[in-house]
Amino acid sequence: MAKNFPTREENYSQWYNELVIKADLAENSAVRGCMVIKPYGFAIWEKMQAALDKMFKDTGHSNAYFPLFIPKSFFSKEASHIEGFAKECAIVTHYRLKNSEDGKEVIVDEDAKLEEELIVRPTSETIIWDTYKRWIQSYRDLPILVNQWANVVRWEMRTRLFLRTTEFLWQEGHTAHATKEEAIAETNQMIEVYADFAENWLAIPVLKGTKSPNERFAGALETYCIEALMQDGKALQVGTSHFLGQNFAKAFDVKFLNKENKLKYVWATSWGVSTRLMGALIMVHSDDHGLVLPPKLAPIQVVIIPIYKKQEQLAEISVKANLIKKELQDKGISVKYDDRDTYKPGWKFSEYEFKGVPLRLALGPRDMENGTIELARRDTLEKETLQQTDIVNKVQHLLQQIQSNLYQKAYDFREENTYKADTWEEFKDIIDNRGGFVLAHWDGTAETEEKIKEETKATIRTIPLDNKTEKGNCIYSGKPSNQRVVFAKAY
Amino acid sequence: MAKNFPTREENYSQWYNELVIKADLAENSAVRGCMVIKPYGFAIWEKMQAALDKMFKDTGHSNAYFPLFIPKSFFSKEASHIEGFAKECAIVTHYRLKNSEDGKEVIVDEDAKLEEELIVRPTSETIIWDTYKRWIQSYRDLPILVNQWANVVRWEMRTRLFLRTTEFLWQEGHTAHATKEEAIAETNQMIEVYADFAENWLAIPVLKGTKSPNERFAGALETYCIEALMQDGKALQVGTSHFLGQNFAKAFDVKFLNKENKLKYVWATSWGVSTRLMGALIMVHSDDHGLVLPPKLAPIQVVIIPIYKKQEQLAEISVKANLIKKELQDKGISVKYDDRDTYKPGWKFSEYEFKGVPLRLALGPRDMENGTIELARRDTLEKETLQQTDIVNKVQHLLQQIQSNLYQKAYDFREENTYKADTWEEFKDIIDNRGGFVLAHWDGTAETEEKIKEETKATIRTIPLDNKTEKGNCIYSGKPSNQRVVFAKAY
Repeated sequence: MAKNFPTREENYSQWYNELVIKADLAENSAVRGCMVIKPYGFAIWEKMQAALDKMFKDTGHSNAYFPLFIPKSFFSKEASHIEGFAKECAIVTHYRLKNSEDGKEVIVDEDAKLEEELIVRPTSETIIWDTYKRWIQSYRDLPILVNQWANVVRWEMRTRLFLRTTEFLWQEGHTAHATKEEAIAETNQMIEVYADFAENWLAIPVLKGTKSPNERFAGALETYCIEALMQDGKALQVGTSHFLGQNFAKAFDVKFLNKENKLKYVWATSWGVSTRLMGALIMVHSDDHGLVLPPKLAPIQVVIIPIYKKQEQLAEISVKANLIKKELQDKGISVKYDDRDTYKPGWKFSEYEFKGVPLRLALGPRDMENGTIELARRDTLEKETLQQTDIVNKVQHLLQQIQSNLYQKAYDFREENTYKADTWEEFKDIIDNRGGFVLAHWDGTAETEEKIKEETKATIRTIPLDNKTEKGNCIYSGKPSNQRVVFAKAY
Repeated sequence: MAKNFPTREENYSQWYNELVIKADLAENSAVRGCMVIKPYGFAIWEKMQAALDKMFKDTGHSNAYFPLFIPKSFFSKEASHIEGFAKECAIVTHYRLKNSEDGKEVIVDEDAKLEEELIVRPTSETIIWDTYKRWIQSYRDLPILVNQWANVVRWEMRTRLFLRTTEFLWQEGHTAHATKEEAIAETNQMIEVYADFAENWLAIPVLKGTKSPNERFAGALETYCIEALMQDGKALQVGTSHFLGQNFAKAFDVKFLNKENKLKYVWATSWGVSTRLMGALIMVHSDDHGLVLPPKLAPIQVVIIPIYKKQEQLAEISVKANLIKKELQDKGISVKYDDRDTYKPGWKFSEYEFKGVPLRLALGPRDMENGTIELARRDTLEKETLQQTDIVNKVQHLLQQIQSNLYQKAYDFREENTYKADTWEEFKDIIDNRGGFVLAHWDGTAETEEKIKEETKATIRTIPLDNKTEKGNCIYSGKPSNQRVVFAKAY
């Protein structure tokens, strides 16, 4: 365990911050709110990207790339977009530096002022719909199923690595359709893709549902989301998929000739997940010993560490270790054999434990005599000694088991921390003292939602897709309600 | 062939511009100098990225991500970097918009002015070495072998799709080493990787060499490059690898304790290729019928087109076509079966020819009777009729042959357009009237280089790595020289 590493119990927030840094995932940079994603953290993100990218392509999407900059005037075109969207953004006003008169520094050249300021994209609906106007004339040009992997910037006042940063990496899908039904089906499909990814890759159970009108994306008619529960009982929005209706088509005048030769506005969706997924992954599975990674996303699935005193021992162990490494790699498993002589085995044990490598194998002189090998699981911290001949099967089996064990553990935690509240006192007590998801009746008004938020900091996370109808009374206003919605404090 | 599409002979420049747009590769956006990379163009870029990324990882590199923004003051830290580097860049000065008083538009909030302006990265040496300072203490932390895939911005006055755009996509490798020798070896290794990629993936022969001091990257002690010849006889720099010495380590005070416990400055390299590769790919292989793609980078390697009059014919053809598609896909070949009934076969033939799909298969009712299929090669435009049973072997064989044929054709073109010039008149005549690479003696001074450029627009493209020593006299100054260097007009 890293020195001075706080437990979750002691200080969950500090535990998270230090974990991200000490596990070499990311760090703050010289630019306020912008992070550096370190190679180990980036390798996890790359695995997420690869899995998601395949899922997008399997559902018929292609990647493309749109400009980083958006003319300022574009933001005024879709009224609810600019109203609802935070105005905190990075604004480019000049395009040239020059040497200062004393020659000691560079300064902004005031002669090089842009006629119209450019905004570093906080999201790309506007520039993309300005482009789609050129791509769409006829029903034969539809649907457009495009995704973009990109960096975006939102000038956040309070930032936290992965969870909320000024610049972050994400993907944003932007689709255009001939009919409303098709666009809604696309919105639904993508929230299902995200849920599938969260559960089967991140090993994180999620609630699927819609947002209340208050929490909708600016410019959307409906926002679908997936929500996960962190170990401190707070919720994290993991992904969103928006049905945008014809709002952007109208704002950018994008019409098409349908099969009946009539001019119609195009229907739109957009959907995205970001490096925030890294935050979810870390917060859901990790423990007081450091990071815990689901095998499907671990850059190193198995590490092999030699234990030796003399160089001859290392030579002998290395032959065996490299054989095992090769056998495992042949099964598609990513293996690192760490034979660096600049670090001791004990240091390496702590290092890989802290970095969440799912399985650790250790080979020492005694093992070489007996044909054995020591295996340790990161998720349960269990150790056992095996015959070397059994190792490949065992590792394959355990990687699957760890993946499903992590999901099950997170699922059980969420179930244990999901409550029903029927009175305001009960509701407040759970939110204040226990955390978790609280299922409660709500009268459906933005006003009540706002008041609950003011008094408890809890927000409506989602109205689940498969929600049951149930008569009841709003916990706050007492007015009639016909379904429970999910409340929680959130990141 | 697309209507009104100019030939290379008529207008090479216009031919290129229209080809990029009409083949759906990229287009200009609403933001001056920033392009939209369309799905078809982006699919080619993704194939390039995948191949390069694997080569980088196979040579021990990892990916990471550094901030988009760089504090202005960082650029002053390495003197030659800011002096040599263009000062045209995008400058972020404010971080908030607000509603105008009349409520009709959004304007920059003057209260939200940054204390220090941020520059949108034109390249990342400075922010990365500011980061490496925190990563490097001891020889055990070295080498650092990191690559970043990113967007960068250079405020270009005259832009052309892919060749020179304000924003472009690239990768930038930034490595840190304990010794000079190791850093030089890395610089060399990466230019070899780029040459390997250019020749074996892009099918473009390249000259490998160093740049003259004049043309070096700002802050580098040596710049290695690969240079290719376009069909109009102009050169294009395709990739560069820089040996940066200790310049950035000194500017950002990055030292390490070596094995002897002494504090030393770290040695650096950086290397990059960009979406400019797309420009090279297009300009080297394409012809008056449109795009020609090497099979290894073609998003669609084989297209199958049904020829039919009645729906029953289509049904029958589709069964066969899908079988062939499946068989080809099983061999790892990417195949599209285009059975859209919204377009006629002739239209589809032109479309895929223009988009450079390497092989086209056509199946009609006559073929169904005879068990035959028509095959057309994009590179030679040859057609032949084959037995359906032979098709898989034939396609596999032809894809390889087209790949090597394109390379050979480009190689022969370059050889035919590489000249030796021994007098100034001869030199000027070739540069003005024939183009191509010109091997000529140069006295080694920046002054002569500059004068040659002024008078002919030709620059020294490279001093080849495997250059022969040869006594001679500078074509311009007549002073003694002991090797020829490569001149050309360039993009």
